Amino acid sequence: MKLSSINPTALVFTLVSLLAVLPATRAEVKPSPNGIAFPKGYQNWRIISMSHRTDNNTVRIIFGNDVAVKAARAGKTNPWPDGAILGKVVWKQTNASHWKKAIVPDKFVHAEFMFKDSKKYAKTYGWGWARWKGMEQKPYGNATVAKECIACHTPVKNNDWVFTKPAVLPKP
Amino acid sequence: MKLSSINPTALVFTLVSLLAVLPATRAEVKPSPNGIAFPKGYQNWRIISMSHRTDNNTVRIIFGNDVAVKAARAGKTNPWPDGAILGKVVWKQTNASHWKKAIVPDKFVHAEFMFKDSKKYAKTYGWGWARWKGMEQKPYGNATVAKECIACHTPVKNNDWVFTKPAVLPKP
Repeated sequence: MKLSSINPTALVFTLVSLLAVLPATRAEVKPSPNGIAFPKGYQNWRIISMSHRTDNNTVRIIFGNDVAVKAARAGKTNPWPDGAILGKVVWKQTNASHWKKAIVPDKFVHAEFMFKDSKKYAKTYGWGWARWKGMEQKPYGNATVAKECIACHTPVKNNDWVFTKPAVLPKP
Repeated sequence: MKLSSINPTALVFTLVSLLAVLPATRAEVKPSPNGIAFPKGYQNWRIISMSHRTDNNTVRIIFGNDVAVKAARAGKTNPWPDGAILGKVVWKQTNASHWKKAIVPDKFVHAEFMFKDSKKYAKTYGWGWARWKGMEQKPYGNATVAKECIACHTPVKNNDWVFTKPAVLPKP
């Protein structure tokens, strides 16, 4: 077949059709500027607790990876074990449409994480700290982002730097 | 060995020792008075959303079984699919010890559930309704407990009887 015999319209149509059947791929979320990798799949983790911050009108669910949930449910959280990851997902608050006095999640704000590794992160009190902003999950801050996190978490330095007290649940 | 040669004290000691090494068993949670079985293991389900009811000072996490979470994340919740179970876990609210303006879970109150089966539960709008109270998970109400649930959920009858709007999350 000579090149001149190819119908350009048909060629474009074929290429577009091929693209349409390829599996949808999503760009990987970039690491935090301090080098911490994004904890892919945290949306499927189990829960540790939740909160409603009335000082900035946001609501939160605190997730844990398996190591963190196991520690939380055994009451072994001071210190949290190496390998534990805590994830706090933050939404703007709104009122429930059919129960106005119920405060519920509205727009997604960000997800922020603490990664426990007492050796690797010894200089930042045993935790790696990172945040990804918005639905696009854009890495937040710069290489020294932990400073800002630690400044805010200082009131709970005797609680292994963690605000969250695991919510009480009957044993499964 | 004759029976008279058995030392009763030693026998009791042996039996107690045997009991001590048996694995700890927990009594199964009893079904709801309307016959609905307790959804064992809901504490490990993924989340749908959360809420803070400022009218009765409680906070809640809304869990879903796999069918419910899949539907929630695909935006297919009106109606919810058969097989979906929604679980709402309720705690008394308190203020976080080191961030007073954050409202967080205190004492566990109860866990209440909606079980979607449009045929089996056709008489109660396609849902089975049940609640288990307290850390002891005591079945609540009587055989017609659904009446009380439905009365409260009537404002959301056009939302397949569900108050909860799934919280927005980036796709995992």
